[in-house]
Amino acid sequence: MSTLKNDLLIRALRGEKTERVPVWMMRQAGRYLPAYRVLREKYGFFERCRTPELACEITLQPVDIIGVDAAILFSDILVVPQAMGLEVQLIENRGPELPQPIRTPSDLQRIRVPDVEEGLGYVFDAIRLIKQELGGRVPLIGFAGAPWTLLCYMVQGRGSKTFDEAKAFCYTQPALAHQLLQMITDTTIAYLKGQVAAGADTLQLFDSWGGLLGPEDFENLSLRYMRQIVSAVREQVPTIVFAKGAWHSLEAMAATGAAGLGIDWCISPGMARQLAGSRVCLQGNYDPAKLLSPISVIEKEVKEMLDAFGGRGHIANLGHGILPNVPVDHARAFVDAVKNHRFAS
Amino acid sequence: MSTLKNDLLIRALRGEKTERVPVWMMRQAGRYLPAYRVLREKYGFFERCRTPELACEITLQPVDIIGVDAAILFSDILVVPQAMGLEVQLIENRGPELPQPIRTPSDLQRIRVPDVEEGLGYVFDAIRLIKQELGGRVPLIGFAGAPWTLLCYMVQGRGSKTFDEAKAFCYTQPALAHQLLQMITDTTIAYLKGQVAAGADTLQLFDSWGGLLGPEDFENLSLRYMRQIVSAVREQVPTIVFAKGAWHSLEAMAATGAAGLGIDWCISPGMARQLAGSRVCLQGNYDPAKLLSPISVIEKEVKEMLDAFGGRGHIANLGHGILPNVPVDHARAFVDAVKNHRFAS
Repeated sequence: MSTLKNDLLIRALRGEKTERVPVWMMRQAGRYLPAYRVLREKYGFFERCRTPELACEITLQPVDIIGVDAAILFSDILVVPQAMGLEVQLIENRGPELPQPIRTPSDLQRIRVPDVEEGLGYVFDAIRLIKQELGGRVPLIGFAGAPWTLLCYMVQGRGSKTFDEAKAFCYTQPALAHQLLQMITDTTIAYLKGQVAAGADTLQLFDSWGGLLGPEDFENLSLRYMRQIVSAVREQVPTIVFAKGAWHSLEAMAATGAAGLGIDWCISPGMARQLAGSRVCLQGNYDPAKLLSPISVIEKEVKEMLDAFGGRGHIANLGHGILPNVPVDHARAFVDAVKNHRFAS
Repeated sequence: MSTLKNDLLIRALRGEKTERVPVWMMRQAGRYLPAYRVLREKYGFFERCRTPELACEITLQPVDIIGVDAAILFSDILVVPQAMGLEVQLIENRGPELPQPIRTPSDLQRIRVPDVEEGLGYVFDAIRLIKQELGGRVPLIGFAGAPWTLLCYMVQGRGSKTFDEAKAFCYTQPALAHQLLQMITDTTIAYLKGQVAAGADTLQLFDSWGGLLGPEDFENLSLRYMRQIVSAVREQVPTIVFAKGAWHSLEAMAATGAAGLGIDWCISPGMARQLAGSRVCLQGNYDPAKLLSPISVIEKEVKEMLDAFGGRGHIANLGHGILPNVPVDHARAFVDAVKNHRFAS
């Protein structure tokens, strides 16, 4: 940690007192930035992921342009199913498509737990380059999708509001579902260890579809696998678990040993703290749609949010990814409002 | 009520003890029923809604075929924006489209609070016919969309995962948003009073997108308008409020005077009861995707659900609408499992 000039995020995750609340934004390297859109015009999605120079340039853009306290690797959660042998198409404005989804026992024969150096070495190359270019200005967050969320895509074959086919797969073929979840988990552990070895300072697990499950299914299909992952890496770097909408399991998620929990805007900071307990760092939870409000409103609401979290054990963030139509100066206003806030003492 | 042969649902909503837990399913008149699909092939969506004989036939199908304890009017929440003067297209398998959404003050001039007898009289005709054909076998549930959910469609112009344009409208033009919400509310009150006058025994308000709002915005943009609606009709019939995902406001929703609250499967019955208090009836909350499980699993899980709710102040239902790919005998197994359950005494 001593090589980081700004280690606010890492210290907050370690439960240490910080001079101010660290701030970053999910999807901060993305379409709302004109500099990103230039590269998006020129290169396909996976080309941007697979070319370390491009991934590095995109990862650093929000650090330079809006001044966040952390960089997050530019990549996608679906590089893991891809490395496991499934074809993944990411067509702009259409969402992901996996033309040959997993539905039967024989489908499982088509995929494997890959050698991550071979299948995902380009990510590690990108991380090494990013770390070099960052020069310790801010920490780098590595990430992966949670096994349940990856299963959703691998079985459904595309985005969905309900992921009913993925759920039906789990409810009608539970043994097969658990076999798939374990394969994803094993791959993810190796992948995240590789990210740490390459230089990631902290890791976030994204369980974007955790909120589709009731409390028991969340434990059974999601949390038990995230627990394995957190256990495997927590000695090396602090881990943040973000299961959108799974507020019912905040206590159980805190018990995994995760250093931080992401929360969305549908839970008040007070209620989240009550459910998650006092130990864990909470990350969130500004409604991304509210970044479309006038700047004066954003400034006022950020203050209210920071006060509600109370300044300790908090990483300021959105409750979900930034929307593509947010003006850059609104994103910067959010970051600045966090940086400029003074808590009443 | 004396004319109803099966008034389990109404008595449960009035807080009375019932011989057994009443059961119905959201979207019980729908695509999973082959008899419905026959009519869907022959008639357009709004033709089915606007022809009392068709709406009646569809409404009665699940009463006859799977034996639910209540009929729910076959219609759509978007008939209200339509009657207010907005064009609504419902293209099968594509979701609703409103080609001229509300975005500006002048857009608001294009719509009005209509005379509901004139604009929605076909619904009242359908209700009178359904009541006659039901002959008191089970109660009839009338319904409307909550003002917030209708605003989502009227502003966004189509379905969306985030309804970011609708939210941006509220965050950037709050006075206009409240003007629109009040117009929807006034229309809805007249519409629901008309449904009751025509014979509806109880009413459900569907706030399908309530879960997109944080607690404060839910109060400000949704609940204060639902409160007006519940107050206007609660003397006449018991009202059920279902705001999917808005678990954070169960206590506030119970305080509206609603007789019942719908809950989804992401909250345990115990937690829902704790948040909602002891007075209100809870309706739910089986995960609709679980109706794809084997029948033996459905039977086991329904028993667990019923026991968790404890048998009093509960209406068995799904946590959201039934999926089109559920086999009819699975739907019937759900209903039968509720009917056959015996609580340990």
